[in-house]
Amino acid sequence: MSRDLHVKDLPNIARGCSVLGAGGGGEAYTATLMATQALMDYGPIRLVTYDDLAPDSIVMSCGFLGAPIVSFEKLSSGEEGRYLLEEVERIRGAKVGALMCAEIGGSNGMVPLTWAARLSLPVLDADGMGRAFPEVHQETMHLAGIPAGPTVVVDERGHRAIFRNVEGAWVERLERAVAIACGGIAASAEYHMTVEEARRATVPGTVTLAERIGRAIADAEDDPVAAVIAAVGAARLMTGKIVDVARRIEGGFVRGTATLEGMGGDAASVLDIDIQNEYLIARRDGAVVASVPDIITLLDEQTGEAAHTERLRYGQRLVAIAFPCAPVWRTPIGLETAGPAAFGYDLPYIRVEDLNPGCGSWPGDSA
Amino acid sequence: MSRDLHVKDLPNIARGCSVLGAGGGGEAYTATLMATQALMDYGPIRLVTYDDLAPDSIVMSCGFLGAPIVSFEKLSSGEEGRYLLEEVERIRGAKVGALMCAEIGGSNGMVPLTWAARLSLPVLDADGMGRAFPEVHQETMHLAGIPAGPTVVVDERGHRAIFRNVEGAWVERLERAVAIACGGIAASAEYHMTVEEARRATVPGTVTLAERIGRAIADAEDDPVAAVIAAVGAARLMTGKIVDVARRIEGGFVRGTATLEGMGGDAASVLDIDIQNEYLIARRDGAVVASVPDIITLLDEQTGEAAHTERLRYGQRLVAIAFPCAPVWRTPIGLETAGPAAFGYDLPYIRVEDLNPGCGSWPGDSA
Repeated sequence: MSRDLHVKDLPNIARGCSVLGAGGGGEAYTATLMATQALMDYGPIRLVTYDDLAPDSIVMSCGFLGAPIVSFEKLSSGEEGRYLLEEVERIRGAKVGALMCAEIGGSNGMVPLTWAARLSLPVLDADGMGRAFPEVHQETMHLAGIPAGPTVVVDERGHRAIFRNVEGAWVERLERAVAIACGGIAASAEYHMTVEEARRATVPGTVTLAERIGRAIADAEDDPVAAVIAAVGAARLMTGKIVDVARRIEGGFVRGTATLEGMGGDAASVLDIDIQNEYLIARRDGAVVASVPDIITLLDEQTGEAAHTERLRYGQRLVAIAFPCAPVWRTPIGLETAGPAAFGYDLPYIRVEDLNPGCGSWPGDSA
Repeated sequence: MSRDLHVKDLPNIARGCSVLGAGGGGEAYTATLMATQALMDYGPIRLVTYDDLAPDSIVMSCGFLGAPIVSFEKLSSGEEGRYLLEEVERIRGAKVGALMCAEIGGSNGMVPLTWAARLSLPVLDADGMGRAFPEVHQETMHLAGIPAGPTVVVDERGHRAIFRNVEGAWVERLERAVAIACGGIAASAEYHMTVEEARRATVPGTVTLAERIGRAIADAEDDPVAAVIAAVGAARLMTGKIVDVARRIEGGFVRGTATLEGMGGDAASVLDIDIQNEYLIARRDGAVVASVPDIITLLDEQTGEAAHTERLRYGQRLVAIAFPCAPVWRTPIGLETAGPAAFGYDLPYIRVEDLNPGCGSWPGDSA
């Protein structure tokens, strides 16, 4: 059932997007400011479910592509959504009925809200990941066999690239090359589809899930970290302090590692986390305790707000948590696309709840 | 007046393309083999002038983009022309009437012949440079104000990128990023235009010019170098031996320098040549003796065949020559686009005939 999103709802959605983002998807701060401005200028956004749209209505999945850290100084113009829409409508020869976040994680969960407000279009309460992933084809639509292309990349200057006859890792390769040439980040739309296709190819209810997680943080009386853990059914991997961050921008990604030294009950333990835009693998004293596609997130020990990979710094006190990904990522094609091996790790995938007894199941709607 | 090109004409055209290529445009060897095969399979190519086509007929300017040296091991499939044609016809909403070499220099003067044979389309006796240049927007169509886009880049696998709202150096930047992602080289089409536009925006008669230069080499009885010099009205800069080549692939270009040590009457002199895919600047004992946009070419001392930048090696005995570019490159916008400053040199442009008395004028047709 559809409902309106107002300016007051945005901070909670942003907080939840950051928790779901596994450290990536881009810090939501600027995107929240832009969405706030857009809602003030253009009014509330209609958040819709599959049932609220005609089955043949077109859903434009969209977001930003590139190294999130670049967005700190390369701001968007707000017009990228219109450029994407014009190209997708030209390709489809039909009007787009709703926008959808390609990934609910981080700023990419917020950006389509800005675009939807400016375009007077609804946003579908769903996304293509149920988290954030670094690579363009790591989408549930890819798992469902929806073609990625023709895909569109645009920048804030209005430059537009359309890719035809591209699938799988080639989408990633070609789009990222253009994003880098545009200055390290660009907006893109892939896997445009009908509502009927979206129903079987996307993760349902994730805007609402983000809002629910964010509200848990906002409403927590004295322990927001515990509130997040309860809201998503996460395992607490460690409470600790960042003692080392190695981070570089490479091939259009933020890559590196972060090391937490345990505090309190975790003293004498060390948690190492590998990064490719998102947190990929967490090892406690050398043993894997969580890995992609499950969601690893670092929370500020005091505020419960998620710490993005591009903001990590020495001395931060954080609580590392992990919780299950949307179930489709645990299918064979899901693991092939975004399991440890997809990122070059020679590691078997073990479910986070098998590694951490007491951890819950995917906190969102089941498809 | 139109005429047919046959298999027997190809080697001469290839030789002439290499002389006009200023060391670049890609070595013509493989492209000549492919064109030979295409003409054997599909019959002769119709070479046409502006007057042979309807004024509103569309000319597709096309060729390869990237570091020429990559073409030694990354061969084309021959289908790239069809992919480009399909996308250009989709963009224009009309059929293409003829292909044209974006640059007559090197293999890029031959490649459209292969594509035209396979597509049963004529080739316009003209090109967009009257030589080869390294960057995509260094085209006479750019000087004439023809829009570059929407432009198309394809690879031999059939991947297709279409760029809209791009002009000037952005065409270069975005297309090269995709060419690099495709493996270092890709096919492209920019500045598609009507025949009426081509008449005022292209260098006329350059396929015929290439053929005439090639025939001079083939028909020379004992001094093919002298035959080339006579055919293009060149200045002889130096006869010498390569004593140093510094060459690297960087940003999708072959860059570097070559040094010739003089022989015979030139003994004790040194000629240094700067390279970016093409020979850009020649300095004899430190003094500039020729520079872009004029054409610097190195000829094999024995055969008169032009030596491409990617084939230079220690010990080669070469004759360095230079001759004037097509006149349009000497206009203010021509020099801004492809003069020394366009390549980052803080050098004034001085015409090759002013630096080398006895040098002739542009050997091709005047527009």
